[in-house]
Amino acid sequence: MRDSKLRTGVLYGVGIGPGDPELLTLKAVRILKQVEVIAVPKSKEEAESKALSIVQQAVDIKGKEILELVLPMTKEKEILAKAREDVANLICEKLKQGMDIACITLGDPLFYSTFSYFIPLITKVLPEIEVRVIPGVTSINAVSSITLLPLAEADEKVAVIPATYEEKGLKEIIRNFDSIVLMKINKVMDKILTILEELDLKDKAVFISRAGWPDEVVVKDVESLRNKRLDYFSMIMIKK
Amino acid sequence: MRDSKLRTGVLYGVGIGPGDPELLTLKAVRILKQVEVIAVPKSKEEAESKALSIVQQAVDIKGKEILELVLPMTKEKEILAKAREDVANLICEKLKQGMDIACITLGDPLFYSTFSYFIPLITKVLPEIEVRVIPGVTSINAVSSITLLPLAEADEKVAVIPATYEEKGLKEIIRNFDSIVLMKINKVMDKILTILEELDLKDKAVFISRAGWPDEVVVKDVESLRNKRLDYFSMIMIKK
Repeated sequence: MRDSKLRTGVLYGVGIGPGDPELLTLKAVRILKQVEVIAVPKSKEEAESKALSIVQQAVDIKGKEILELVLPMTKEKEILAKAREDVANLICEKLKQGMDIACITLGDPLFYSTFSYFIPLITKVLPEIEVRVIPGVTSINAVSSITLLPLAEADEKVAVIPATYEEKGLKEIIRNFDSIVLMKINKVMDKILTILEELDLKDKAVFISRAGWPDEVVVKDVESLRNKRLDYFSMIMIKK
Repeated sequence: MRDSKLRTGVLYGVGIGPGDPELLTLKAVRILKQVEVIAVPKSKEEAESKALSIVQQAVDIKGKEILELVLPMTKEKEILAKAREDVANLICEKLKQGMDIACITLGDPLFYSTFSYFIPLITKVLPEIEVRVIPGVTSINAVSSITLLPLAEADEKVAVIPATYEEKGLKEIIRNFDSIVLMKINKVMDKILTILEELDLKDKAVFISRAGWPDEVVVKDVESLRNKRLDYFSMIMIKK
């Protein structure tokens, strides 16, 4: 028998920051303590979730249900759409049972995160659902704080671009902005080096992988990275 | 007599997030509890510091020395340079006495913050000084979380631009990026409305002032703001 008074759960997107457990916010900690279910997006390929291991260092999550949201690392749109829908349905089931869910995400839930895909899928099934996002410290702020390079001063312009973007546009943006953060550079490093050379900006660029993690790497001589195999969590910051 | 063993203090730049005291990070709280001096940049015009009142809601700062760093709101370069140098010297005095100082800043210390000006001025006087930056949640992530508009998904490009920038360049950037955050719009709102109208993007724009503060304002019908007097802490986010 359905209890008509049953309250629908609240869906929280919780940003846990760039990697250092101490960069969780007080609000993230409170919500994670409070909810019954912690949802963890992960790829099929991952053995364990990095995000979950960071949370475990800051919050006691014993007794909470961990809901793994497995999404394949593919660009095939149909497979991806189906997987996302399945995952959204898993979340909806818990919400319908009145459980509050915190979906954790490295950095910020609405900055290059899977969480933003879930919002329309879940509100399609449960239009009245309450979605609350707890913002987090992003990897770009982590990179800036580690290198002590200001992301923006006074009237400066900042661009954040996936380096997979087409070369001509990339060069144009790098030329026109004061600070540029290039994401997803691990597979296109040689292209980036060529552009930096053409624009005479190699000495203004810093490479960072795994910002704020114990195995963080910072490289100022970016040329030394040519033909190297790079970590998935790699970025370049250019500060003129 | 000078104690040659006297340790020089550490200078911390501590981001306290966009306005909600719960958005301080665990690290910010720890550092603020630990230091002897809390430095608070403020303009001559301000009666009290917003940043300090946010910190006071999250951390017990009784017994700590509060160092007010008064900087005039002026564009006159010489006056500003002199004021910044005086303020940097104040900080250096404390550091030389072996005191650790946390310089608090709304949002992130290296994202449109006064803190970045202090770094070169202080390291000029004290080259061996240790500067550590604790990144914070920025106002752009706050705006994104409040509106539930993703700042970036997949391969999207993000631009953050002071809206005081020249009109032609502004229009070009708004046209070419997927997400655009316009800062400092309070005095140039009519110019922005004209651009949004020309690019047919008015319904993709959201206005926010004082994101995350008790007196936060969110306006989706941006046209209604024409000719209105706007708050200093106002932004527009455009999400295509």
